[in-house]
Amino acid sequence: MNGHIQRANILVEALPYIQKLSGKTVVVKYGGNAMIDSAITRTIMQDIVLLKYVGVNPIVVHGGGPEINRVLSNLDIESKFHNGLRITDKDSIEVVEMVLTGKINNNIVAELNMLGGSAVGLCGKDAKLIEAEKKAPTDGVDLGYVGEVKAINHKVLELLSQDEYIPVVAPIGIGPDGHTYNINADTVAGEIAAALKAEKLIFLTDIDGIYRDPDNPDSLLSVVMVDEVYRLIDKGIISGGMIPKVMGCIKGIEKGVNRTHILNGTLPHPILLEIFTDTGIGTMVTK
Amino acid sequence: MNGHIQRANILVEALPYIQKLSGKTVVVKYGGNAMIDSAITRTIMQDIVLLKYVGVNPIVVHGGGPEINRVLSNLDIESKFHNGLRITDKDSIEVVEMVLTGKINNNIVAELNMLGGSAVGLCGKDAKLIEAEKKAPTDGVDLGYVGEVKAINHKVLELLSQDEYIPVVAPIGIGPDGHTYNINADTVAGEIAAALKAEKLIFLTDIDGIYRDPDNPDSLLSVVMVDEVYRLIDKGIISGGMIPKVMGCIKGIEKGVNRTHILNGTLPHPILLEIFTDTGIGTMVTK
Amino acid sequence: MNGHIQRANILVEALPYIQKLSGKTVVVKYGGNAMIDSAITRTIMQDIVLLKYVGVNPIVVHGGGPEINRVLSNLDIESKFHNGLRITDKDSIEVVEMVLTGKINNNIVAELNMLGGSAVGLCGKDAKLIEAEKKAPTDGVDLGYVGEVKAINHKVLELLSQDEYIPVVAPIGIGPDGHTYNINADTVAGEIAAALKAEKLIFLTDIDGIYRDPDNPDSLLSVVMVDEVYRLIDKGIISGGMIPKVMGCIKGIEKGVNRTHILNGTLPHPILLEIFTDTGIGTMVTK
Amino acid sequence: MNGHIQRANILVEALPYIQKLSGKTVVVKYGGNAMIDSAITRTIMQDIVLLKYVGVNPIVVHGGGPEINRVLSNLDIESKFHNGLRITDKDSIEVVEMVLTGKINNNIVAELNMLGGSAVGLCGKDAKLIEAEKKAPTDGVDLGYVGEVKAINHKVLELLSQDEYIPVVAPIGIGPDGHTYNINADTVAGEIAAALKAEKLIFLTDIDGIYRDPDNPDSLLSVVMVDEVYRLIDKGIISGGMIPKVMGCIKGIEKGVNRTHILNGTLPHPILLEIFTDTGIGTMVTK
Amino acid sequence: MNGHIQRANILVEALPYIQKLSGKTVVVKYGGNAMIDSAITRTIMQDIVLLKYVGVNPIVVHGGGPEINRVLSNLDIESKFHNGLRITDKDSIEVVEMVLTGKINNNIVAELNMLGGSAVGLCGKDAKLIEAEKKAPTDGVDLGYVGEVKAINHKVLELLSQDEYIPVVAPIGIGPDGHTYNINADTVAGEIAAALKAEKLIFLTDIDGIYRDPDNPDSLLSVVMVDEVYRLIDKGIISGGMIPKVMGCIKGIEKGVNRTHILNGTLPHPILLEIFTDTGIGTMVTK
Amino acid sequence: MNGHIQRANILVEALPYIQKLSGKTVVVKYGGNAMIDSAITRTIMQDIVLLKYVGVNPIVVHGGGPEINRVLSNLDIESKFHNGLRITDKDSIEVVEMVLTGKINNNIVAELNMLGGSAVGLCGKDAKLIEAEKKAPTDGVDLGYVGEVKAINHKVLELLSQDEYIPVVAPIGIGPDGHTYNINADTVAGEIAAALKAEKLIFLTDIDGIYRDPDNPDSLLSVVMVDEVYRLIDKGIISGGMIPKVMGCIKGIEKGVNRTHILNGTLPHPILLEIFTDTGIGTMVTK
Repeated sequence: MNGHIQRANILVEALPYIQKLSGKTVVVKYGGNAMIDSAITRTIMQDIVLLKYVGVNPIVVHGGGPEINRVLSNLDIESKFHNGLRITDKDSIEVVEMVLTGKINNNIVAELNMLGGSAVGLCGKDAKLIEAEKKAPTDGVDLGYVGEVKAINHKVLELLSQDEYIPVVAPIGIGPDGHTYNINADTVAGEIAAALKAEKLIFLTDIDGIYRDPDNPDSLLSVVMVDEVYRLIDKGIISGGMIPKVMGCIKGIEKGVNRTHILNGTLPHPILLEIFTDTGIGTMVTK
Repeated sequence: MNGHIQRANILVEALPYIQKLSGKTVVVKYGGNAMIDSAITRTIMQDIVLLKYVGVNPIVVHGGGPEINRVLSNLDIESKFHNGLRITDKDSIEVVEMVLTGKINNNIVAELNMLGGSAVGLCGKDAKLIEAEKKAPTDGVDLGYVGEVKAINHKVLELLSQDEYIPVVAPIGIGPDGHTYNINADTVAGEIAAALKAEKLIFLTDIDGIYRDPDNPDSLLSVVMVDEVYRLIDKGIISGGMIPKVMGCIKGIEKGVNRTHILNGTLPHPILLEIFTDTGIGTMVTK
Repeated sequence: MNGHIQRANILVEALPYIQKLSGKTVVVKYGGNAMIDSAITRTIMQDIVLLKYVGVNPIVVHGGGPEINRVLSNLDIESKFHNGLRITDKDSIEVVEMVLTGKINNNIVAELNMLGGSAVGLCGKDAKLIEAEKKAPTDGVDLGYVGEVKAINHKVLELLSQDEYIPVVAPIGIGPDGHTYNINADTVAGEIAAALKAEKLIFLTDIDGIYRDPDNPDSLLSVVMVDEVYRLIDKGIISGGMIPKVMGCIKGIEKGVNRTHILNGTLPHPILLEIFTDTGIGTMVTK
Repeated sequence: MNGHIQRANILVEALPYIQKLSGKTVVVKYGGNAMIDSAITRTIMQDIVLLKYVGVNPIVVHGGGPEINRVLSNLDIESKFHNGLRITDKDSIEVVEMVLTGKINNNIVAELNMLGGSAVGLCGKDAKLIEAEKKAPTDGVDLGYVGEVKAINHKVLELLSQDEYIPVVAPIGIGPDGHTYNINADTVAGEIAAALKAEKLIFLTDIDGIYRDPDNPDSLLSVVMVDEVYRLIDKGIISGGMIPKVMGCIKGIEKGVNRTHILNGTLPHPILLEIFTDTGIGTMVTK
Repeated sequence: MNGHIQRANILVEALPYIQKLSGKTVVVKYGGNAMIDSAITRTIMQDIVLLKYVGVNPIVVHGGGPEINRVLSNLDIESKFHNGLRITDKDSIEVVEMVLTGKINNNIVAELNMLGGSAVGLCGKDAKLIEAEKKAPTDGVDLGYVGEVKAINHKVLELLSQDEYIPVVAPIGIGPDGHTYNINADTVAGEIAAALKAEKLIFLTDIDGIYRDPDNPDSLLSVVMVDEVYRLIDKGIISGGMIPKVMGCIKGIEKGVNRTHILNGTLPHPILLEIFTDTGIGTMVTK
Repeated sequence: MNGHIQRANILVEALPYIQKLSGKTVVVKYGGNAMIDSAITRTIMQDIVLLKYVGVNPIVVHGGGPEINRVLSNLDIESKFHNGLRITDKDSIEVVEMVLTGKINNNIVAELNMLGGSAVGLCGKDAKLIEAEKKAPTDGVDLGYVGEVKAINHKVLELLSQDEYIPVVAPIGIGPDGHTYNINADTVAGEIAAALKAEKLIFLTDIDGIYRDPDNPDSLLSVVMVDEVYRLIDKGIISGGMIPKVMGCIKGIEKGVNRTHILNGTLPHPILLEIFTDTGIGTMVTK
């Protein structure tokens, strides 16, 4: 009997969120370090499929990570780096593209579809979804085929997403001359969420969220304002790979995304727990 | 953490039912003995509003009960009975109609609306929703303005239900001559579910379901086939007020209702627990 | 032959009005003193059904009157009055609600439907059609559950009215706390016509219209401007029960109702004669 | 007061016919001898415009008559006849076409439009509305460019008629080689009504209808069955120009026209009197 | 093989124009002197039918010319002229109307339809397409039933043109009193193109376009600006019948027509060559 | 002038095909040996973009070829073959998938988009477009991850194709367990054309079509019936890589494809020349 009541209470709490999010777009950035445990990955894919089931329109943006290095090394292509950024030459970009769009993207699509979803893989070349331009040299070093987002042509996303499909986007852009560019996936997620004026933008990472004091596990911030984010960056508290994520959040917020979240993607079902509970998990970045 | 996992599991179990029931009709019969505890009633009303939130289309049919007797007695109208059935004369039917459509119906509508729903009360006169004919005399005794369902003109139900509204139906019929007839609410619920080819028909009663052995609380039947129902009636195991309910179930099943249920409406949130869990509660009557 | 010509001329005069009113809303307030003769009532119901036949969308608002007193007295509920206004306590409002929504409303609905219409009864609780607030005390006397219109949620009226249905509205409102309030029916008619920006608002009363000199039957005003109405009220020429009617007209006009009329509902077919003839009958109140 | 009641009764009688005919097609054949008195013609045009006002879709088919002879004679083109049928040579057909489509049709269109309608003139060449084939020689005499209806391509009629327009059709057909053919207008009216499965087909003539005994003005038939029509033709009671009209009626009935009428077009407002009164005027030919 | 390449190149050049013009309106003025050679006329009709085939919406406006004179003379109606303008009395206007709408218009319609099109003939009386007013006297001479365009009621053109039909318009207007007026066809074409905000307005004439020096065949202007047109008129280089054409172009441009052209209609397929090639033929008048 | 006439004639011939194919689906199989010359490839991509411009809906299916071998060899993955068929083990299928979907598909998409199209790349995993099953062992030899088409889920193709997009499909299937399968691209093209009941199915190869006598260049067959194809296979005249193409044609024809073609994709603009000329090029396989 108590089990019944508790169960009922969880549903009573969750169902109104379904109404609120019905027909809305939720952009989920997933990948890299967060994608390591396949059992957890499966719960995240299940979350995305369930979102679609109940009338929410998820869009997945993924990154690359270790897989790219593995193939480059198998092909004896040496990876040069400058300040931690890969210098992507002609040979490398071909491999990056093949792995991102021909392997990782396909795998995510297949897994979503095996769980009952209907995912469709896209990259920035499809319908010129992501128009890119070459990133300016950093400290005078030319990074090669590394790009910035110039424009998002989001019509194809809407066509698929407002129908029964779950778009899965690889962070490859197309240059004005048709060249391939590799783009930071967090940035792509932020730009897509902004272009679609998504209801939510969720970054799945390998930490629980933003901490006021990284050494104190009790200092996790449930909500953090944009101004505070800048201050935490200045103080070096937000740093490294977390910066494109919070900047993606800020970019989204400025262009009309309603809510942006940083969640721990190494725990099971983070999306359901964030979306369908009053307290949520992780950190919400907001205006 | 365990709490999170359990919570997620309940949602993972529930969400696919939302997809399956999306846009489907669920007829809920509620009333009489099941409506006594106002705190419980409130959880049931909440269940109905939440169903609508997540895209299911509930329709409520209610009965009358003690309230009618109270008003009749206040008006010094004597209630005559024959074999437990009220003989409804001209004065009585006026009171029955006023109480059912002008009091109980309004109260349910108001409560649903205070909980965030958008309910609309109807009786069988509205758009001739329930065309009635006089019930044949029982043992030669004329029961007066007691009717049987002749036809359900369900268009108005569909118009409201497929829009944002929750129709709430009082079991009053209109005769060929325009006269008012009182009809058994369980029968009305079965006929409406049948006419709409509802996905589900739910009777909220004051017991947990059908027992194979009424004296043995462990003998509750989760599922019972139509044939078995007839046998249980013959044996006297199903009897009294339970008969119109199981006959309503059978009527619905024969005309295309997918699933029919008898649940205990004196426990909280019976509808959510039945609809959004794999095991359900109560007894399902099926083909 | 002459009969033919006359008949043709009446049609030639009437048909262009059908074109002009096609798809337009006409709110008819009917009730109380105007509803006494059942043969006349029948012609009025027929007028309303015929309006619907030819593509006009009538909405009926009704009042209560003597029936309420009869039931109150049968229930031995004493009616207290202050300056002619009933003090409506908890017991009284229950009866008022039951009679208005469970009896008078049902009767009008049934009669319209027996004449070939498809009427649906509503009160202010349905889809929170009429949100009410307690009327301020008059001369320091608390009138109990007597309300004012706070908001009209007219979507449900439009849904029904733009489909094949004729909504019939009882003047019961729902308070912020879910309580029932009794509201003046003339006021409700004016507010509904205003909310719907109705083409016409018609008050059926027991007199032919507004007289410049009440003692002179030849002084009936065909048209009267709003300014003039205020002057006639000041002079006491318009008084008593006529005041809410003319104020309903003015309210409607100010909020976009095109034409408002006061007609004699004790004569046969007043609505057809007003709407489908060049000269009309009764008094038109206009800007 | 009596005037009011009579007026209301006429409306009560008429309005249900508007509902029944709403959105339905009524084909009116008008022309020749029936078109002589311009004041009467004006009432008929007014009838047609009013039909359109109240949601009925009239289509007018007209004939030619004396005007053609006048122009032929002005152009010194001799008219040869065989058994009363004009032998239409190359010069004649040009004149017939010019007068029917460039004069009579334009005049009807202009008159309807001056009365508030929105008429559009058509002939059988427009969108190949009337595909014709040469009429077989009669008694071995070649009648020249006189045609029979081979096919009605009615899409353009429906496009215009279901929009705000009143199509006005001249009885000119187009042969397989593009040649112009003159066709009997009564036949064209019957074929168009049949192709559109019109609700009504009305022939306006210069007599009151079909008489059982042409010498007895009291023997007008209100209704006549198809079988009886054949008998009356055999007996010679129906003869001459009345034959294509009754055959047009029969053709229409066989192909699904609901009701066909022969009315006197020399009296005012014949269409309104037929359509909007219980008794009608003239003769109805029916199955 | 060379033939294949050339053929492919022509298609590669043409197909993008089909995309650009898809669903757009092209008004073609054709008539008078340009209509002399029936083999050439046939290629022009074919061009118009092919435009419709590929999704462009052509509208044809035609003039009259020698045919009118022939019929007037056959009817012994004397043609009076003032400064080259026909004085159109009551008898003449009847003939002008009959010939334009009952002969020339029908012939164009029939020819388009024999080539696979679906043309519908219209004149200004149809749905009051061209409302006219009497032209002011010229040098004090009353020109009779010669009119100016007062208004274009273009809804019927759009209905037909956006469906499968090709409207063919005769330059006859309807006066406020219902009278017939003859209007310059070039002016009508310009006004219709302006009213429809056509993509293109094409005048088919008997010369190749506008010459800077009429005596020098090499001075044909491919493009001429509106200012230059006025200068060429002032210098007398544009004169006579070319003036209404260039004024029609200017009128169209001022009201939103995108491109206006003057082409030689005595050469085969002028419309296809203008529309589907990069260089075009004739003179384009533009802002 | 002659140039003009010839140009016009080519357009007159081509335009009716645009009407006939408007809104129809054309499946183009392109790849492997036919894709060698990039200048020619560009004309083919241009043809496909132009088809879309004029309202035809092309769908591209491509194969793999030498690129796959190059990457396999760079990765030191040895290719084993049995009877000319690659034995595709776990490592190989990963590379096949990456190259087909992450390189060749992306390149075609990018090229179409740089020419003004809006292409979207798909493989069989996307929305489970191509459900595959393992190919049965050939001569007892297990070919590994080589699949057959089990089902085509074509909804996503229709969604994209009926909108502004050009789907480009890589011949990768998804097995019941989610595994990747490599499938013959000709077979995929035939199955997709069949599933969509395409109007046309075009195989671009490196020969001009089917020859009755492969040694006689004059024996090219313009049209060949299905029966004849079987005979030519039996005789060994159709053999090798041509077999899946003709079988794709036959499969398509049997399932409702209207016309199937085998064209030489090493010559410029083969698709335009086939589709928009009366004579066409290559061989048509038909019933």
